[in-house]
Amino acid sequence: MAELTEIKAVDMAVDTVALGDYLDGPYGEVREQMRKALGRPELAAVDPEINSPEYRQRVFEWVRLLGQEGYATRGLPTEYGGDGDIGGSVASFETLAFGDLSLLVKTGVQFGLFGGAILHLGTRVHHDEYLADIASVDLPGCFAMSESAHGSDVQSVGTTATYDYETRQWIINTPTESDRKDWIGNAALHGRVAVVFAQLINGEQNHGVHAFVVPIRDRGGRAREGVRIEDIGYKLGLNGVDNGRLYFDQVRVPRSNLLDRYGSVTESGEYSSPIENPTRRFFTMVGTLVQGRVSIAGAGLSVSKVALTTAIRHGELRRQFGPPQGGEEVPLLDYRAHQRRLLPLLAQTYALHFRQEELVDELDRVFSGEETDEQARRSLETSAAGVKAVATWHAVDCLQTGRETCGGLGYLDSSGLAARKADAEIFTTFEGDNTVLLQLVAKSLLTGYREEFGHLNPLGMAGFIATQAVNRLVERTAVRELWGRIWDEITPATEEDGDLNKREYQLALFAWREQHVLEGAVRRLKAGIDQGEEPFDVFNSAQDHVLSAARAHIDTQILEAFNRGVERCEDETSRALLDRLCDLYALSTIERHRGWYQEHGRISSTRSKAVIRNVNSICEEIRPQAGALVEALRVPDCVLPEFGPNGLAG
Amino acid sequence: MAELTEIKAVDMAVDTVALGDYLDGPYGEVREQMRKALGRPELAAVDPEINSPEYRQRVFEWVRLLGQEGYATRGLPTEYGGDGDIGGSVASFETLAFGDLSLLVKTGVQFGLFGGAILHLGTRVHHDEYLADIASVDLPGCFAMSESAHGSDVQSVGTTATYDYETRQWIINTPTESDRKDWIGNAALHGRVAVVFAQLINGEQNHGVHAFVVPIRDRGGRAREGVRIEDIGYKLGLNGVDNGRLYFDQVRVPRSNLLDRYGSVTESGEYSSPIENPTRRFFTMVGTLVQGRVSIAGAGLSVSKVALTTAIRHGELRRQFGPPQGGEEVPLLDYRAHQRRLLPLLAQTYALHFRQEELVDELDRVFSGEETDEQARRSLETSAAGVKAVATWHAVDCLQTGRETCGGLGYLDSSGLAARKADAEIFTTFEGDNTVLLQLVAKSLLTGYREEFGHLNPLGMAGFIATQAVNRLVERTAVRELWGRIWDEITPATEEDGDLNKREYQLALFAWREQHVLEGAVRRLKAGIDQGEEPFDVFNSAQDHVLSAARAHIDTQILEAFNRGVERCEDETSRALLDRLCDLYALSTIERHRGWYQEHGRISSTRSKAVIRNVNSICEEIRPQAGALVEALRVPDCVLPEFGPNGLAG
Repeated sequence: MAELTEIKAVDMAVDTVALGDYLDGPYGEVREQMRKALGRPELAAVDPEINSPEYRQRVFEWVRLLGQEGYATRGLPTEYGGDGDIGGSVASFETLAFGDLSLLVKTGVQFGLFGGAILHLGTRVHHDEYLADIASVDLPGCFAMSESAHGSDVQSVGTTATYDYETRQWIINTPTESDRKDWIGNAALHGRVAVVFAQLINGEQNHGVHAFVVPIRDRGGRAREGVRIEDIGYKLGLNGVDNGRLYFDQVRVPRSNLLDRYGSVTESGEYSSPIENPTRRFFTMVGTLVQGRVSIAGAGLSVSKVALTTAIRHGELRRQFGPPQGGEEVPLLDYRAHQRRLLPLLAQTYALHFRQEELVDELDRVFSGEETDEQARRSLETSAAGVKAVATWHAVDCLQTGRETCGGLGYLDSSGLAARKADAEIFTTFEGDNTVLLQLVAKSLLTGYREEFGHLNPLGMAGFIATQAVNRLVERTAVRELWGRIWDEITPATEEDGDLNKREYQLALFAWREQHVLEGAVRRLKAGIDQGEEPFDVFNSAQDHVLSAARAHIDTQILEAFNRGVERCEDETSRALLDRLCDLYALSTIERHRGWYQEHGRISSTRSKAVIRNVNSICEEIRPQAGALVEALRVPDCVLPEFGPNGLAG
Repeated sequence: MAELTEIKAVDMAVDTVALGDYLDGPYGEVREQMRKALGRPELAAVDPEINSPEYRQRVFEWVRLLGQEGYATRGLPTEYGGDGDIGGSVASFETLAFGDLSLLVKTGVQFGLFGGAILHLGTRVHHDEYLADIASVDLPGCFAMSESAHGSDVQSVGTTATYDYETRQWIINTPTESDRKDWIGNAALHGRVAVVFAQLINGEQNHGVHAFVVPIRDRGGRAREGVRIEDIGYKLGLNGVDNGRLYFDQVRVPRSNLLDRYGSVTESGEYSSPIENPTRRFFTMVGTLVQGRVSIAGAGLSVSKVALTTAIRHGELRRQFGPPQGGEEVPLLDYRAHQRRLLPLLAQTYALHFRQEELVDELDRVFSGEETDEQARRSLETSAAGVKAVATWHAVDCLQTGRETCGGLGYLDSSGLAARKADAEIFTTFEGDNTVLLQLVAKSLLTGYREEFGHLNPLGMAGFIATQAVNRLVERTAVRELWGRIWDEITPATEEDGDLNKREYQLALFAWREQHVLEGAVRRLKAGIDQGEEPFDVFNSAQDHVLSAARAHIDTQILEAFNRGVERCEDETSRALLDRLCDLYALSTIERHRGWYQEHGRISSTRSKAVIRNVNSICEEIRPQAGALVEALRVPDCVLPEFGPNGLAG
């Protein structure tokens, strides 16, 4: 890469079409189709003062429009009239996230969660009965998993589905107030059916959480007998989505309403499952829903693209202060502080773009059946959890920084940042709370993706760690040796700033942090367990350490993906620019962790200062290309605010 | 202090009444009065779906109610029927910020900005004519300073006020679209008069920015001839405030409408001013408005108290996961990651509380005339800028973290966090953009508060720095010696965690950072200038460094204020608990900057790790007192959400 960076980014003439095409990647056509769709007059943004009943109605009509035009069939298997294009359907959803986020979420509920549950947890009979009507939105439905008392800990939901041998029916019941289904999209108004997650009780035995199709409303919109529905009320954002709460009072549904791919009960009441271990079964079921997390990661990415396109364009146009000799005022983006706030975020957006592209590819291979290895599926789940957490926090960062760097104008609804900021906010807690997702990633790292640790069970984990994890880590000799070799080549280098721009050095620093934090966490856990402390306390007191390990792992994966993205790029100028942006991503991440690197003797104080200096100079170098870099992200004009000669039009 | 910390915070029985009284401080009565007022049924929160015309009307009625009940007379001089209690009026405003923030802002516009401009920039004739009507809200008015093209750089506003010798009138004019007055509160709907900041043109000469009273609407609400008023439109938040834009087309007002305390024109057209230097005059005029910044700092502080009270109570009640042996689930606040997110913010809130208390005292002394030293006034302006920036960013942090740590429930309007989050957001950019305010602080540090550097003028600064600043810093021998002595006592200490909890050590680390960053910035600036680089480029390339210097200075002042607050506290248990909380503030701040401390050889890698460990253990120690600590903040129940047995009621 060294020869490429000899052309300074500042001097390049970037072909934004070539770069944009490259970013569009294998799903360019799908993306373009959706970008065009967003410009259709029927999808024009709502008035910001629209009241929520009207807004919900409008969003429902939008979802129907998408359904009628075949939006939802792209991802459906060919045997149900679909294209079987899972990757394309995620790319399409990602692009939809440039627009109204209530539409996005309602779409996700209907096709992704509700439809996905029927598809992945049901069998042929359910597919035949429901899929076509779901895709056309003739059957609006809900995905009723979360409960008031169990948002993150789904394995402990309180709702029960008890098999009644006499009538061959399931009796769905909400035992206490805190077991009500909560936050359920499509429930307050439009859903006619819900996929309800409940403990399957058969005789004396609880076979764990399974999913059931439960009608909740008739065609006239009246709640079915035994079903109580509440509106969740006004929210910070996403008020075009009708979230509700569901209570079931001994509601009966036929035996066949159990989505029985991973567990079924015969007429005579015998339970069987292709997966014996109940924890493994639960996580296999939940694992089929991974597409939702991948999709939300993509949505977070798109939102960050909108925010940065807005803020960077504004920063290029808006002028304030400047040389006093009567000269013109200076564009905000020429100020170092402004560059510092926006350009590392832009680099991270590109980095996440390439990571997301790989994640979608992984998803596509696993769900198309091309990749059947169990390990690949687990790795996908871990990746999805990690990228979702990082991408949605990143979206919130970009919106906040975008808002602030646009000053008062960013606070106006007309900036497009206001509503998005309120809407995207929930991304950090839905489809898995981000902190809980990081713990999931950590658990995978600690256990090597072993299925028996599906549940976040400190006691089980404790035993495992006490006996195996340390050895397993120490035994990773192949990785170790490789890493050691790289390191040996790099460490003797003189402490000149230039080394910092070597990708091998950056990658090695990331990998070293990942490995070292993880090993430290394991040692800390093991020490606590060896001293006979309560497993829960051991895990809790190492929680910050464990979360850092997860984050370090995700960061490494992101840098590796970005680097591969640079290397794959065939357009020379684009590649050179991406290469420099990748430096910015790597060094600004190292800068953020420079306290840690120094603590662990991995970078000296001199080199640490050099990191800061380099981030400054790359920002300066990238600055003239900032406009081209956001243009290549291809956020369609129809979702962007108006700009005047002095930045955002007020 | 060492003897106090021997009683571990975890074991204390805290007297929350004593602690609360201590926090209420000298304005306890004023605060209590406002806390009670917030519970009045007339001030009950609006429906979140209220449309903005209704919301604006409601807020206007609220402001009138406050005015009629004498809210605004507390701060007025006794000769105009007021109490002359400036500190009390700021404390009252701070407490009002627990409630609806549209009300707060509209109140601030009417009494603080509009009334404040008349009071401080006008003379007896204006006071007699306007003050009573402003206080009773019979005359709603605006403060028309910002322009579309000049948000932060007020000295360059484009609006002109040209003296017409023939008619003895001022002609107020908006030369171009971008010179329109923008974001003006009270302008879109209710304001009848505006204090307009414009370049005073007399004959051939421009005497710089002055303020003029300009009627903009008649009693019937119609715009006056030559005045064009636009509604700014829907915003992210604060939609109860009618922000507007004002354009003036050769609008004529009588000569006496110039607020002439700092500059006047005789009938015959002779300009005179008590302050000869125009830059100094401008900054003196603007300086009188410092109360606005102090008030917004207090408002930010109150908002952070609401957010943390909500999130910490929720964290104490809400349970998720936990030991697998069938035990009860664990309250969120028992998780280390949760403590880590909330408790350092709580410590910072307390720290800012004590800093704000000192700032209000400073303001009161300067504006009551008790303190007449020019240096004291400049120091107040710098302090206000710094505390405003830090307190409002802190408010945004607390709302974001509060929202996230309450999970989905924090996203509901009923949590009270949603609307506040949208409203308080603008605090970071209004009454001075925070980044610009930090530059103001930096400038004061670099020039030793010398008035000639009022304007952020790189060229003038450059000359000064080249010749004097370095020497001035080096000459600060008194400070140096004191610091050196403290340091010498501390550095030979063994690297045991215990030292970290010595206040002297913490203070020394803060002071060292402040001094070192500032010296580094000066050296960097001087080197650039000595090499003949363009002054603007020199300043720009050191901007990150200069901003860090400002932040380090503010941080030190905050820690010092907290420490004094601990020392002054007479209730033993409260003092011991505050002492520990002060440790948490100090160490979590040092932790955030540990990369820097290591780079500069001030803490070793071993000690840096000890800082992290100590933050963890103080969090654990403080955790059982978290409920008492938020109770003592006295956020009234009427502005808090409902709580159920499992946290926030949904």
